[in-house]
Amino acid sequence: MTGLPTRVMIHEEGPREGFQIEPGPVATDDKLRLIDALATTGLSEVQCVSFVNPKRVPGMADADEVAHRIQRRPGVRYTGIWLNLQGLERALATPLDIEGELQISASETFSVRNTNRDTDQTLVEQRRMLAFCLERGILVESAIIMTAFGCNFEGEITPGRVRECVRMVLDLAAEVGITLRRIRLADTVGWANPNSIVRVVSTLRETWPEIAFGLHLHDTRGLGMANALAGLQLGIERFDASCAGLGGCPFAGHAGAAGNICTEDLVFLCEEVGIATGVDLDALIECGRLAESILGHPLPGKIMHAGSLSRFRVPRST
Amino acid sequence: MTGLPTRVMIHEEGPREGFQIEPGPVATDDKLRLIDALATTGLSEVQCVSFVNPKRVPGMADADEVAHRIQRRPGVRYTGIWLNLQGLERALATPLDIEGELQISASETFSVRNTNRDTDQTLVEQRRMLAFCLERGILVESAIIMTAFGCNFEGEITPGRVRECVRMVLDLAAEVGITLRRIRLADTVGWANPNSIVRVVSTLRETWPEIAFGLHLHDTRGLGMANALAGLQLGIERFDASCAGLGGCPFAGHAGAAGNICTEDLVFLCEEVGIATGVDLDALIECGRLAESILGHPLPGKIMHAGSLSRFRVPRST
Repeated sequence: MTGLPTRVMIHEEGPREGFQIEPGPVATDDKLRLIDALATTGLSEVQCVSFVNPKRVPGMADADEVAHRIQRRPGVRYTGIWLNLQGLERALATPLDIEGELQISASETFSVRNTNRDTDQTLVEQRRMLAFCLERGILVESAIIMTAFGCNFEGEITPGRVRECVRMVLDLAAEVGITLRRIRLADTVGWANPNSIVRVVSTLRETWPEIAFGLHLHDTRGLGMANALAGLQLGIERFDASCAGLGGCPFAGHAGAAGNICTEDLVFLCEEVGIATGVDLDALIECGRLAESILGHPLPGKIMHAGSLSRFRVPRST
Repeated sequence: MTGLPTRVMIHEEGPREGFQIEPGPVATDDKLRLIDALATTGLSEVQCVSFVNPKRVPGMADADEVAHRIQRRPGVRYTGIWLNLQGLERALATPLDIEGELQISASETFSVRNTNRDTDQTLVEQRRMLAFCLERGILVESAIIMTAFGCNFEGEITPGRVRECVRMVLDLAAEVGITLRRIRLADTVGWANPNSIVRVVSTLRETWPEIAFGLHLHDTRGLGMANALAGLQLGIERFDASCAGLGGCPFAGHAGAAGNICTEDLVFLCEEVGIATGVDLDALIECGRLAESILGHPLPGKIMHAGSLSRFRVPRST
């Protein structure tokens, strides 16, 4: 199998994705236990919380407390997300590792439904965010393109539309003298397939070979790991993933409920085909089990239930 | 994406895989409902039952009744499995579509644990089965190599070992003047990865370019669909799969419990990358939901919970 990278960097999003969507309350101490366990596995980035309106997302009402109480381990970045300047200001008041990231949705209809802003309004908001980051000395060198592969409102998204979006965020950054180095392509609602991943990534690389494209994949319709493999075959080196497949209940029966691809399963895929992740798979599997025990219901990760192959590979007695 | 076949043939194994492993009883009428629903989706083969010892597999005690009561639909093969001559005799007494298939396990330890026969004893048994089939005029043109990618007892299985096994079954068939046309490679306990699929299939094709190799994949450790993609990229045209991912509880916490790859998810993968399956995906999704309602607990299939993309692709009002 050719084209694979030698090393992959995984941004763990489980604590943020998972605890945000849970219907019942999760104890702050439990959130901290999972974050700390993840930080000991070799993962270099753990997304811990989202600074959003606690009335709309009650599961994140303790975001500030979680962020303050994390016991930092060296070599690990602890990240969070926000949807507006108010959220960013809250994030800045915590010890989290804060970077700015430009955000745009390839589907304008999704943008309107999700953030109440069309593309032009999004650009205005992003320009404000960028100015704020510059003023505060916050690093901005990445962007995310949401619904980059399709959307329930607009259907298929063409590679050309994604290219337009990348151009918009690059132009926005260029206005203030910033060069973006990384762009994440998000399959926000589960439309991607291996072919569309190849088409979109190849189209973007033709124009911007110097930019590192990453993938944020959901397993909504079962193609998560096939899509990850397609990305690996393109040499993609950055993936978002979620411990235990946290981030949604696969049994909710409605679209959009399925979580990110499962971090342990992704690490297993990478390591089995010879790609280094820097992550201790067995330790990560224990994190998946911890997440399941904290939440008290089954989570969709696979290898956390079957166990890794390491115990079968121990050299036999000499 | 190159190398993909234009068409794939899926052998549906859900009813046999699923009802065999369920701890509680499943009504014969419900089994028949699911088999009939599957037969209306465009699937050309449905594996319905296994003729095994009802004391050891109580869920298959009604195998003969199920096989007799199937209302056959034209164009569909209704198949079953057996582990010995006694089982085959039972199968022959039903209206099922019976073909012989040679079976051997690449891991000898697995063979001993699973069937109480080492490789030599397996060959003796297979020779008896072959003679019986010849005598009765039963077609034999395929074989299955179990644990072709690894095994919990012997660890990694080398492509060279799989080649030896293929040679053994070909020799066995040649003894009685039979040429095998198809060989299934089974990832019986979830050891395969995309690289090992490429290595094993490529090694076998070097020696036997004329044989059609198929894949029987399990999603034990989350790589099922990535492995399927690797197979498709090699031009593999035959896959076994299981409606709703029937065949095991992914939450049982022990290896070997996870089911086959999910048929609907596989059909979705194929159709999205332009490979014809002949299957009506939405009808198949309804079968997954029927299986879940019959069993009364969540099943691991993904697209059956999220829904297909077809409703979002309906042309807008003219």
